[in-house]
Amino acid sequence: MSKSSSTITNMSMNDAIAADQQDPLAAKRLTFKMPENVIYLDGNSLGPLPIKAQERAREVVEHQWGNDLITSWNKHSWIDLPEQTGDKIARLIGASEGEVICCDSISVNLFKLLAIALQMNRGRTEILSQNDNFPTDLYITQGLNALVGENRCELQTVPADEILDAMSENTAVLMLTQVNFRSGHCHDIKRVTEHAQAKGIIVIWDLAHSTGVMPLEMNNWGVDFAVGCGYKFLNGGPGAPAFVFAAKKYHQHLSQPLSGWMGHKAPFEFSPDYEADPSIKQFLCGTPPIISMSVLDAALDSFMDVEVSELRTKALALADFFHAQLEARALTSDLNRQTPQPHALRGAQLSYSHPQAYEICQALIAADVIADFRAPDIIRFGFSPLFLSFEDMYVAVQRLADIMQAKAYKEPKFQTRSKVT
Amino acid sequence: MSKSSSTITNMSMNDAIAADQQDPLAAKRLTFKMPENVIYLDGNSLGPLPIKAQERAREVVEHQWGNDLITSWNKHSWIDLPEQTGDKIARLIGASEGEVICCDSISVNLFKLLAIALQMNRGRTEILSQNDNFPTDLYITQGLNALVGENRCELQTVPADEILDAMSENTAVLMLTQVNFRSGHCHDIKRVTEHAQAKGIIVIWDLAHSTGVMPLEMNNWGVDFAVGCGYKFLNGGPGAPAFVFAAKKYHQHLSQPLSGWMGHKAPFEFSPDYEADPSIKQFLCGTPPIISMSVLDAALDSFMDVEVSELRTKALALADFFHAQLEARALTSDLNRQTPQPHALRGAQLSYSHPQAYEICQALIAADVIADFRAPDIIRFGFSPLFLSFEDMYVAVQRLADIMQAKAYKEPKFQTRSKVT
Repeated sequence: MSKSSSTITNMSMNDAIAADQQDPLAAKRLTFKMPENVIYLDGNSLGPLPIKAQERAREVVEHQWGNDLITSWNKHSWIDLPEQTGDKIARLIGASEGEVICCDSISVNLFKLLAIALQMNRGRTEILSQNDNFPTDLYITQGLNALVGENRCELQTVPADEILDAMSENTAVLMLTQVNFRSGHCHDIKRVTEHAQAKGIIVIWDLAHSTGVMPLEMNNWGVDFAVGCGYKFLNGGPGAPAFVFAAKKYHQHLSQPLSGWMGHKAPFEFSPDYEADPSIKQFLCGTPPIISMSVLDAALDSFMDVEVSELRTKALALADFFHAQLEARALTSDLNRQTPQPHALRGAQLSYSHPQAYEICQALIAADVIADFRAPDIIRFGFSPLFLSFEDMYVAVQRLADIMQAKAYKEPKFQTRSKVT
Repeated sequence: MSKSSSTITNMSMNDAIAADQQDPLAAKRLTFKMPENVIYLDGNSLGPLPIKAQERAREVVEHQWGNDLITSWNKHSWIDLPEQTGDKIARLIGASEGEVICCDSISVNLFKLLAIALQMNRGRTEILSQNDNFPTDLYITQGLNALVGENRCELQTVPADEILDAMSENTAVLMLTQVNFRSGHCHDIKRVTEHAQAKGIIVIWDLAHSTGVMPLEMNNWGVDFAVGCGYKFLNGGPGAPAFVFAAKKYHQHLSQPLSGWMGHKAPFEFSPDYEADPSIKQFLCGTPPIISMSVLDAALDSFMDVEVSELRTKALALADFFHAQLEARALTSDLNRQTPQPHALRGAQLSYSHPQAYEICQALIAADVIADFRAPDIIRFGFSPLFLSFEDMYVAVQRLADIMQAKAYKEPKFQTRSKVT
């Protein structure tokens, strides 16, 4: 038994090495600063530090701010940064230049879009979403509901497989996250959007777990609006600003409620009356956090010579290799896979449930395999294709197998991971 | 004439040197990274780079994010950063610990507070403000108005000297900026607040041009709510996050509409139902921009061994010295002072109007004196007491005098300031 297991795993290590040798993205790992010996399966929570982002942080703080002070708004084009960063994201989601802007957080941006969509669909009051959507999406709807009243906005949530049937003549907006944060289940954006629009429903997609790893076609799929995250697969740094996509055909007719001065068509004329910029800039509100946004802008350069389809192919291959290793080591009886098998039905993560998911996660972290826990019982592994290798998959599962076999998670040695340098 | 002028200015230089020798804050300048030869009178637009903020930027990017990745949320207390930064600001505005939180922008924070205040004063519909308030404050009110309708929210604006009389039984909220961004005129917060509250009006103060330089007593003055800026006198970096103050007595009864997950009482339980944190954390919305916020947090340490009253005393002395120099050089006939004379009526800036204010500003920047232009005809000089010296005042006016005498602003040599290293 031990001999046979050893044969399987040696074969797999050779497979991993062979896969890495064939990987057209393998060299991208060198563009990240990664702690040695750590296998980071949590790029879907917080992407790691791109070396160019580190350089840009020094540049923006020490040279731009430090030397050029206020003149940097023009001299270093800080004033154009939200659009510049947005345009880099546009390419990754199948949008055109001028259709994406970097600003605020997903939560704040959803508030803007939900208010717009309700206004576009006046007479209808329901915002339809999924009952296990990422909570902030639901919370923001609840906040809007409390502000404008139930006669204008009410939240309806149903399980993922009931969404198509739940659309009604009173549904103003469908708000969904493409890839579920907990299960990794993935919606077919094109199909759901068409179905909703046929019923006169405005659709808002949350691309938090999609952008930078899922092939997206906002324009080809006729998407109305979307939001997404800067700090997950885009590697933009902790709390990096989010983004808004709005199809160009709508730009002339919008009125978003967070009408701060940076969205004014002439902010430096200091007129007392708000007039929205006619472009995507109308989604701006207050002064953007330039340091955090510059870091995201630099991080996006990692994507400029890569096609998202390549990223998708590798992310799926990494996940499949990882799961095959778990099966080879007979770990899938304890770790109960929650993520669907078919490629079309999942994003770039695999989730497994276990009654002691939290403890296993802590033990993994102590063994320098970073994954994360999602209450109540999920371990979530993210497969960021820019910096992970197949050898990483092999070693991660090996360390996980050691923990599971020794039941080392029952009394984790460390509460937090030991410091790496 | 030339001789007499020379005598005056030599005397003034000696006065400046003497004043610097007496200045208890003089050594603080060494804690900033300032470009050589530049006199920076624009700390009220964007404060300069504190050396500790530069160090913290490297620390948070290169060590915390770079090495410790997602574990930094706990290991480096990123999760507590909004409260930690808020508590440092609380000390500067006369608030208690747990009454201030760092988050979002002033614009977004005003939206939260205005919605709360309208709810607290249900039945009244008017938001009263000043017609030359900073535009974003008015724009945000207009956005809220468009969202909830005129029967729940209408904006009324009047000149500064008509505010007390304009309060009516229909005034739900008074929203004012203490120090006017254009004129530098300063309101008496205590008096205005008492007057408004006696009429059942909720008061929201915008402390953008006050925090870090005006002695403020939120609690002693019975202020309900306030917002303020991280990137002006607090030197928190471009687009640094803003803050919210909410008097503790209200914390149990609030309901703010931007109810994102970071304001939930247990965000990592991922419940589908929003339950606001009972503390000041209820003002959080999405994931905060940790890099930008860390830089602000470090910048605030410059204030920890200083009393705001010392800052106020020096800021006024710098401004008075500056204006006296303008008078001594007979520049005040051309440059028409817009800022009131009495100390109690002004903040930490002096504004002068001139038909060619923009060109003069550009010529000053070319001469390494950074001030800023505010449309249509204002030159604005900010007196940040942490890094400016009286000698700076002397040299700045000397350079301004050279420009005015040579009328060098008619054809400015440079469109932007030459690069400094």
